[in-house]
Amino acid sequence: MNLVSIINIGDELLLGQVVNTNASAMSRMLTASGFDVASVRVVGDDANAIRNAVDFAMSSTDIVLVTGGLGPTKDDITKKLLCEYFGSELVESDVALENVRRIFAVRGFELTPVNRAQALVPRCCEVLNNDLGTAPCMWFEHAGRVLVSLPGVPFEMEWLMQNRVIPKLQDTFHTQTIINKNLLTQGIGESFLSDLIEPWELKLPECIRLAYLPVAGMTKLRLTARGERGAADQLQREVDKAVEGLYKIARQYIVGEDCETLAELVHKTLIGRGLTLATAESCTGGTIASALTAQAGASAYFCGGVVAYSNEVKESALGVKHCTLEAHGAVSEQTAREMVEGVRERLGADLAIATTGIAGPDGGTPEKPVGTVWIAVSSRTRTEAQLLNFPGRRRQQNIDRTVNQAFSMLIKLICQED
Amino acid sequence: MNLVSIINIGDELLLGQVVNTNASAMSRMLTASGFDVASVRVVGDDANAIRNAVDFAMSSTDIVLVTGGLGPTKDDITKKLLCEYFGSELVESDVALENVRRIFAVRGFELTPVNRAQALVPRCCEVLNNDLGTAPCMWFEHAGRVLVSLPGVPFEMEWLMQNRVIPKLQDTFHTQTIINKNLLTQGIGESFLSDLIEPWELKLPECIRLAYLPVAGMTKLRLTARGERGAADQLQREVDKAVEGLYKIARQYIVGEDCETLAELVHKTLIGRGLTLATAESCTGGTIASALTAQAGASAYFCGGVVAYSNEVKESALGVKHCTLEAHGAVSEQTAREMVEGVRERLGADLAIATTGIAGPDGGTPEKPVGTVWIAVSSRTRTEAQLLNFPGRRRQQNIDRTVNQAFSMLIKLICQED
Repeated sequence: MNLVSIINIGDELLLGQVVNTNASAMSRMLTASGFDVASVRVVGDDANAIRNAVDFAMSSTDIVLVTGGLGPTKDDITKKLLCEYFGSELVESDVALENVRRIFAVRGFELTPVNRAQALVPRCCEVLNNDLGTAPCMWFEHAGRVLVSLPGVPFEMEWLMQNRVIPKLQDTFHTQTIINKNLLTQGIGESFLSDLIEPWELKLPECIRLAYLPVAGMTKLRLTARGERGAADQLQREVDKAVEGLYKIARQYIVGEDCETLAELVHKTLIGRGLTLATAESCTGGTIASALTAQAGASAYFCGGVVAYSNEVKESALGVKHCTLEAHGAVSEQTAREMVEGVRERLGADLAIATTGIAGPDGGTPEKPVGTVWIAVSSRTRTEAQLLNFPGRRRQQNIDRTVNQAFSMLIKLICQED
Repeated sequence: MNLVSIINIGDELLLGQVVNTNASAMSRMLTASGFDVASVRVVGDDANAIRNAVDFAMSSTDIVLVTGGLGPTKDDITKKLLCEYFGSELVESDVALENVRRIFAVRGFELTPVNRAQALVPRCCEVLNNDLGTAPCMWFEHAGRVLVSLPGVPFEMEWLMQNRVIPKLQDTFHTQTIINKNLLTQGIGESFLSDLIEPWELKLPECIRLAYLPVAGMTKLRLTARGERGAADQLQREVDKAVEGLYKIARQYIVGEDCETLAELVHKTLIGRGLTLATAESCTGGTIASALTAQAGASAYFCGGVVAYSNEVKESALGVKHCTLEAHGAVSEQTAREMVEGVRERLGADLAIATTGIAGPDGGTPEKPVGTVWIAVSSRTRTEAQLLNFPGRRRQQNIDRTVNQAFSMLIKLICQED
């Protein structure tokens, strides 16, 4: 097992102005590629703090990945420090300069001396080309260990990790073959799921590890198989067999495979089947539409939606009957059904989702406390509605759980139509 | 200055399954209260790694805050290790047990031995009551330094930091008085803003520090004044004077004060003025509605919205004329104006926002490349439209910038009505 230390540099991280998404993105990519992250360290733009962190990391792990501290206005603390650490000197790299020139040409800007200085790197490093930005990615080898310095801009870092750093690390450290398989489950709590599948889990072969990743009422199960290089086919067979076994005991809770989120599963399913969708959202307030349209290509299936926050809009834009709202209230099965059928018909979609509920933290009554939510899904042939009673009063959590439950009901409806 | 180390414990953090939002939330709260975070360290659920991190932190900073490793099923690695570190032993705490009992009574669950064990704490610590959960918050003092162990659940951690830990740290370390003031600016890039206000910034008194916090096309300026305890009135006067000076040179770019986000500014402004709002979203796909309704109390002003993704929905739900779409296309000033006026009138709102554009990464044409966006805002007396040309092809960034620009245009429209 090859151990990795991550060091993220930036005052903005220590001040809490920016959430350190780089650490989790890097950890996820490394874990999926067969590396183990031993520690993450965040330090400010301060040479001493960086030096101490690098010293400790190089003495305790095989691989050290450093992000940040490379911008044109940041004094290049990191580069100078790496020169000193590896006993090298700054030189202009042809590869890096060519890349800076190319990016400035694309943007139509003049190359300034400040930007040209981005091509300076320690002589002893290898420059890995950064196709998306001007900051160089630098690879150092020292006493059998590797240190890589990457820019802190998340999309540049992610591209470099995926396309340059991880492939080179895999070559250098002859890592194992890794096969990952995701299964999304819904409608069962993590601990109940764990009890249900325990007999299956105990019989998993040693090469497969199982992880539970619960998010907003949905639990993702990830199987990770590890083996020697060249054993990919055999590992794949083991994984397939394990998945088959899981379906035998938990089929009713498995809503999809090979997706990170239920929004992605809905996206792929609707595109794959050529079906269109409309949404009518009250308590989720546009979050369902937003989650779907955040994905490129959503226009292939998403007609649109109505955020029907007030009762007037439920009537005028969705055709919910006034007497329904009077008799049953906005948070009711009847209203949810009229919302979902109204939006599907008015927008001419194959499928529709509707939500109406009390997200909290206030607004509940004794009969309908905070956390009471009705969800309805509808196709051209049937409409299904479901009542949820979330225990908590936290608004965002109740919204996110409603969104996931709605996506899961839609997937089930589509499967029933088959 | 009192230096803080943060240690976040959890295998799920090192595997990248969870983004470490605790570190940034804690850093933000600490910075705003006069403490300086020197380092953040993430380690797995591993006694050796935790011990090393605690050792190093206790030797290099005055305050060490540890999150995680306290759950009922986690073996309580952290508690045992803290016993060993401080030479103490586990005892049942009356305060912690009473809290566990109270929470189980509220939830109507039976108290199990596993849960009762949550009340075990090292004898030498003081238990700070956790009103929101069963995991105890433990305060240790040792050789003039403080270590606090908190649960890793974000909402419990945040409540404890705000209500228990920071007040006690302020008492213990006699921290300075801190006054923070936020100003939201829009419509000017960070570097141009920096050039514009440089003369003002250079004349700021020594007690005031300025920070630039750019997010999705909006830049938040934060003034932080620090001084002796008891100097609050004088500091406030200095801050007021600085803010007044800033308005003199940058009034046109300042859209609001004392809010963290533009969505919060819109929320407070509309509630304060008793105005209602409707939205018609194409390229933002419900993100504007979602951002507003994520805030409790949005029903006071938000009537609802239409996510008009297809041209058919723009016509049927918003009343955009077929000939307008034919002649000018969906991404045009004319369409944006008809969308915003259509939704305002149909939903009977005082104000409306509309967006239509090409978020990317694909879908552009030579005349309307990716990043072309029209935004319109409308009141009962006027409608304004604006064209944006975002340079990048990244979908989420273009959506987020459009949302912020739309909020800022709405705020300006409201101010013009005064």
